[in-house]
Amino acid sequence: MSSSLLEQLIEALRCLPGVGQKSAQRMAYQLLERNREGGLRLSKALAEAVARIGHCEQCRDFSEEALCSVCASPSRERGLLCAVENPADRLAIEQATGYRGLYFVLQGRLSPLDGIGPRELGLEKLATRLADGEVKELIIATSPTVEGDATAHYLAQLARQFEVKPSRLAHGLPLGGELEYVDRGTLAHAFAVRIEVERN
Amino acid sequence: MSSSLLEQLIEALRCLPGVGQKSAQRMAYQLLERNREGGLRLSKALAEAVARIGHCEQCRDFSEEALCSVCASPSRERGLLCAVENPADRLAIEQATGYRGLYFVLQGRLSPLDGIGPRELGLEKLATRLADGEVKELIIATSPTVEGDATAHYLAQLARQFEVKPSRLAHGLPLGGELEYVDRGTLAHAFAVRIEVERN
Repeated sequence: MSSSLLEQLIEALRCLPGVGQKSAQRMAYQLLERNREGGLRLSKALAEAVARIGHCEQCRDFSEEALCSVCASPSRERGLLCAVENPADRLAIEQATGYRGLYFVLQGRLSPLDGIGPRELGLEKLATRLADGEVKELIIATSPTVEGDATAHYLAQLARQFEVKPSRLAHGLPLGGELEYVDRGTLAHAFAVRIEVERN
Repeated sequence: MSSSLLEQLIEALRCLPGVGQKSAQRMAYQLLERNREGGLRLSKALAEAVARIGHCEQCRDFSEEALCSVCASPSRERGLLCAVENPADRLAIEQATGYRGLYFVLQGRLSPLDGIGPRELGLEKLATRLADGEVKELIIATSPTVEGDATAHYLAQLARQFEVKPSRLAHGLPLGGELEYVDRGTLAHAFAVRIEVERN
């Protein structure tokens, strides 16, 4: 029925996260019918990215160079290190906050059942970095999930071993939402750790 | 912050339908971190598909050869022609029904406001085909939308010009659903064109 190159393309598109058979079909048809130029551009970008993007030696984020632009920048504070699970989290922090320190990208979180332990997260490299005395505070920005919390706990212990102060992002009500739609766990936590209103 | 090849990849991924900035980011990170092999395979499949997939001369579906496998098959009935809007619709009919005739893929539907007229749908080619006398019935399988109906109307007139019998897919209740969830328009139509139950 369909040409076999088309089938190969549909199959190949399914390697993208969140793309099943139907979406892959739609993508292939759309590219071939409306946007062959975009398809070619994507083909080239993929080939180049796979060939040339590696990891930054220092923070493990994606980088074309040995050091990524943040690690190589002379204007970042070297005493602050923020551990994140993945490059998207790092990007989110970089865009939302005025943080001027450095990052360490775990590329995952501790998950013994999936075979992801301290070695997979590059924690030896992190330990070496904490040991050299430059870092004063380790900001642990893992996700507020069971595995993220376990990872945070592990990282905090690691930091204390080297006399580095560990800190975590605050938990509580998200800004700008309706209280009634906040999930129960978050609400209970925010209620329990409520903060005294100061006079001003 | 990110390497520029990574930005290029994210930008290129956005040419896929339904993929915005966030999804493109997630796709790029996932490919680079977990599935570089899949990325390379996709890159090659895209390049080959764009270079080598054209349209079947006869039915306008995608094909690597001058004639697609259905049009080239000697075992299909040449007296039946089914007009569909796109290759996905053709695939759906092929998989769901036992249809053994040929197809004509419009690659769109009449939409004067978007500049899609008879020429863009290849209707000259369809007219030539209807004129040669081989086709006895034109099965019009456009979508049950305003534009699909307009296209169907146009195609039916075209068929009658060449003394070919036009037919359309039946409208009514979808099988296996609950009556209360059927949309009002479908229900009204199914009620109006109700069919007498025959004795058996």
